[in-house]
Amino acid sequence: MLDVCLLGLGGMMPLPGRALSACLLRSGGETMLFDCGEGTQVTWRVAGWPFKPTGTILFSHLHADHILGLPGILFQLAQSDRGEPVTIYGPQGTYEVARYLAALGGWIPFDLRVVELAGDATLELPGGIQLTTIELRHRVPCLGYKLDLARAPRFDPDRARPFGVPVADWKRLQRGETVGDVRPEDVTGPPRRGLRVALITDSSYFPELVPFVEDSDLLLCEAMYAHDADLERAEQRGHMTARQAAGLARAARARRLWLTHLSPSVEDPQTVLDAARTVFPAAELGQPATTETLRFGDAR
Amino acid sequence: MLDVCLLGLGGMMPLPGRALSACLLRSGGETMLFDCGEGTQVTWRVAGWPFKPTGTILFSHLHADHILGLPGILFQLAQSDRGEPVTIYGPQGTYEVARYLAALGGWIPFDLRVVELAGDATLELPGGIQLTTIELRHRVPCLGYKLDLARAPRFDPDRARPFGVPVADWKRLQRGETVGDVRPEDVTGPPRRGLRVALITDSSYFPELVPFVEDSDLLLCEAMYAHDADLERAEQRGHMTARQAAGLARAARARRLWLTHLSPSVEDPQTVLDAARTVFPAAELGQPATTETLRFGDAR
Repeated sequence: MLDVCLLGLGGMMPLPGRALSACLLRSGGETMLFDCGEGTQVTWRVAGWPFKPTGTILFSHLHADHILGLPGILFQLAQSDRGEPVTIYGPQGTYEVARYLAALGGWIPFDLRVVELAGDATLELPGGIQLTTIELRHRVPCLGYKLDLARAPRFDPDRARPFGVPVADWKRLQRGETVGDVRPEDVTGPPRRGLRVALITDSSYFPELVPFVEDSDLLLCEAMYAHDADLERAEQRGHMTARQAAGLARAARARRLWLTHLSPSVEDPQTVLDAARTVFPAAELGQPATTETLRFGDAR
Repeated sequence: MLDVCLLGLGGMMPLPGRALSACLLRSGGETMLFDCGEGTQVTWRVAGWPFKPTGTILFSHLHADHILGLPGILFQLAQSDRGEPVTIYGPQGTYEVARYLAALGGWIPFDLRVVELAGDATLELPGGIQLTTIELRHRVPCLGYKLDLARAPRFDPDRARPFGVPVADWKRLQRGETVGDVRPEDVTGPPRRGLRVALITDSSYFPELVPFVEDSDLLLCEAMYAHDADLERAEQRGHMTARQAAGLARAARARRLWLTHLSPSVEDPQTVLDAARTVFPAAELGQPATTETLRFGDAR
């Protein structure tokens, strides 16, 4: 299972009552943070998640509304007595910016590592997450992220018993380890679908996004503008309209779509939701500071 | 007159419901900002002051909770179409930090000037303000600020008439200009007390603060800790207890004292106020996002 908590709906600047878009994810006791603009530490407190288990920070890009909360987050991690390393992933330029912002936050009692990624990287994160990136279309280098949590195949006791494997070792087999001469595939069922969360912000729409976010259990997607009339402005500024975000969810057969990163010019977020639902009826507005748990059983 | 608006009560980190300490001041249509931590732009919006008239930003020191809101503030000034220069004053190191933070905020359509000050400087600000600084006692270079707004002497029509100065020129004389052969002192009364606001945060207490803030109409002072038991901690960390702040106000015969910059460990700000009032009964907790106008007539 995977816990997800959006921390805000806003893009560009924090507003009274509308915190900047950022997202917490948790798997296997490990917390990941996706983006952190000005004020993210405050909504994080409202959400009630502990800071300490956070070993991974993902930056989509280096615009201020996605990174400026870093000193405060690192300060909170320092205050929480974290000793384990923290790794920041982001596009080209992340190293310099992260080091500078980290220095502003004060002394850090843990290793801070920075990994700069170019489009289409795949790597393993703590918590059993496979991370895949895609180069987005924004005004600066910007990454979309896909997090896949694999689901262990069903263990079949009836096939295991004839091998004489002790029950105590069944878990190891299910996890994919070989025990003695017995291979996992000897005693487990076919592969099972895991969980997939895709995080797309900031970007204009382009068709290659569809296969990237395909079959997501949750697609967190920017929807900067409510109305089709803003389509040209969205293209120019590297953003999407609500209907473009919804079209992506529909084309990719996403199970859920959380809309976020609304322009300050969107006075009523409901207008974004209404527009999106004309294309993808299951669309939702992200619910800031509300934790939802995605379970394997919920997947189609 | 001088408008003052505290933007938050918090020190060290923003909390839900407690924004970081920062303060807006306005005189003669010119707005000054004193410190800007993470989230200051949000409370600024709540306060309802326009961003555009802000030509002066004062940094007490370069800890994150006093400066990290700068990119957002500069972004708001850029969005407001400001064309006039903005000057940032602060201690040694301000130039580098301000330039870096400014770059994070994006393109700026006005000149950004940085002036680094050492203790005991005096200079003129827009809006008729005389600014004086003092070196505070904190863990890093830190400045206290005193803003003095002079009050023009009373103009005496009975003394002016015999000189035959046209009524249209009376204002020039009152402002201190010589008109023809007539000097201001020929037609005005004795000097009158102006308005004084002192801004002291972050600092431990030291006796030289008393003459610096003497006779302030408003003393905005940090009060990091509520209880005398925290006195040693306050000294070590370069902060004051509530009773120290109140003692400063009393010794300096301040007219009003606004307490701010409370430690996150202070759960109930009322405890800070209660402690301060045992020493200085007129003490107040700052009222975030509430504008108060200090008028010449109110001065003793």
